[in-house]
Amino acid sequence: MSVDLSPIDESLLAEIAGLHGMPKGAFNIRRDGQLVERHNSAFIEISTKTDVPGIDIRIAPGTKGETVYIPVIVTQSGLKDVVYNTFYVGEDCDIKIVAGCGIHNASHEASEHDGIHSFYLGKNSRVVYVEKHYGEGEGTGERILNPTTNVYMEENSYCEMELVQLRGVTSTVRDTNAELAAGAKLVLVEKLLTHDNQTAESNMKVELKGDDSSVQVISRSVAQDNSVQIFNPLVIGEAACRGHVQCDAIIMGNAKVKAIPGIEAASEDALLVHEAAIGKIAGDQIVKLMTLGLTEEEAEKEILDDFLS
Amino acid sequence: MSVDLSPIDESLLAEIAGLHGMPKGAFNIRRDGQLVERHNSAFIEISTKTDVPGIDIRIAPGTKGETVYIPVIVTQSGLKDVVYNTFYVGEDCDIKIVAGCGIHNASHEASEHDGIHSFYLGKNSRVVYVEKHYGEGEGTGERILNPTTNVYMEENSYCEMELVQLRGVTSTVRDTNAELAAGAKLVLVEKLLTHDNQTAESNMKVELKGDDSSVQVISRSVAQDNSVQIFNPLVIGEAACRGHVQCDAIIMGNAKVKAIPGIEAASEDALLVHEAAIGKIAGDQIVKLMTLGLTEEEAEKEILDDFLS
Repeated sequence: MSVDLSPIDESLLAEIAGLHGMPKGAFNIRRDGQLVERHNSAFIEISTKTDVPGIDIRIAPGTKGETVYIPVIVTQSGLKDVVYNTFYVGEDCDIKIVAGCGIHNASHEASEHDGIHSFYLGKNSRVVYVEKHYGEGEGTGERILNPTTNVYMEENSYCEMELVQLRGVTSTVRDTNAELAAGAKLVLVEKLLTHDNQTAESNMKVELKGDDSSVQVISRSVAQDNSVQIFNPLVIGEAACRGHVQCDAIIMGNAKVKAIPGIEAASEDALLVHEAAIGKIAGDQIVKLMTLGLTEEEAEKEILDDFLS
Repeated sequence: MSVDLSPIDESLLAEIAGLHGMPKGAFNIRRDGQLVERHNSAFIEISTKTDVPGIDIRIAPGTKGETVYIPVIVTQSGLKDVVYNTFYVGEDCDIKIVAGCGIHNASHEASEHDGIHSFYLGKNSRVVYVEKHYGEGEGTGERILNPTTNVYMEENSYCEMELVQLRGVTSTVRDTNAELAAGAKLVLVEKLLTHDNQTAESNMKVELKGDDSSVQVISRSVAQDNSVQIFNPLVIGEAACRGHVQCDAIIMGNAKVKAIPGIEAASEDALLVHEAAIGKIAGDQIVKLMTLGLTEEEAEKEILDDFLS
């Protein structure tokens, strides 16, 4: 890996983006609000925005099989990094985008990263987007991550988003917005783990505007210790569309979870469903694993890992 | 039936309370803001409140097998009737309460009835409560019904509430609040039909405060024509409790339905689940009934009646 990166940097990049060494193809690595390294490919061009901090990522029509990496790491305490990243995905693409943010905070001052990501998907394009958030460090300073994700989907495009908060994030307010044209399909998977006194709020608004558009929202979370989580997913059906929202939360210790998923049908031909469940790990699941030789702690960890995987 | 009642009055009472003639036992019939007739039984005493309009209904401990009727009818246009009815149910009772409000509006002026009903259930008591709302009349004046229902349940009490809006109600804002002590169980069934340009909003807040308390909320609604419905049921689990919320809505024509059921777990031992679905009548259900000889309209009516029954 580049000589510019410290062992802490490298560890963060491995955690949030699975990177070991510089990736192949197009990528942009940002550290403490500054560009570390950028690379374009034949069909993917990354350029610095001129009006606000951030980058434009332009993917040429017909680009297939490529992966773009745009991870961000923050190791400087007291930094509030705000970045706008905009993806213009041409028609008929089939690509993967790997983002994510890792914070290492060794101080008593807060470190914050607010990433505003917007995606414009051209007709018939397929995008898989993975974003992982992670915090660590011996400092008492807060590790704050407030992502905003906007997705605009043209006819018959497909997008699969996996938004994950691994652990160590003191507080987060997550806003996700999507608009789907006819035939577009969005699969939105959110996985959150909170512990200690952490707080997480997740707001989602998905507008199904075109006929035959559909969305599946899958939210899975684990709230441990004294942490608090709030979920406000809203799906609005304005056409002959289908929407399904599923929120499942495991609550442990003195944690609190509130789920208020909304569905709103403004068309007779909209079919919207949601389900939510909050509860602790079923005792019989733990007992079952303990009969296989695991300790109670191991059994609990196994079940949680499986739930969030 | 009493000579005081007109054919319209009698028809309304039959619609909302199933009454044909004066009921047996304890009852209180209110028309246009005035008492028509009242009767107490050996164990049930109805008295007029001295501070606000309305009545106190005191049910002696151990009362079993009795039914109390407290229907309200409004036939005077331009009347806004606000009434506070409070039920004090002693310990170890097993009773049924039939309320309801029917409006006949023959004018262009609005008629409104706001009933604020509070229930204090003593330990181990069982109450079945049925409340039906209905509007009719050739006038263009609005028929407005804004019920507030408060239920306070002591240890091991049981309450089953069936709250029904039959049809003809121009606008309604429904507030339902419940607090459950240990071992208490509440079954809350709400059925709403809206049509034309009607609007309905239903807010519910159920607090499960004691261990082994439980609530089941079943909401079924049909929104026809240009009507709009909003549902905001919230269940809060503060103990080792169970809550289940189920909202199902059928949408027709240009109607809009929004369901935002919330669940909030503030205890590791709370198990809360909700489900909601909004959609139109499945086409294959209609086809099936049509093969049995029904017309499309008859098939649709059959399915809706079954859904709301």
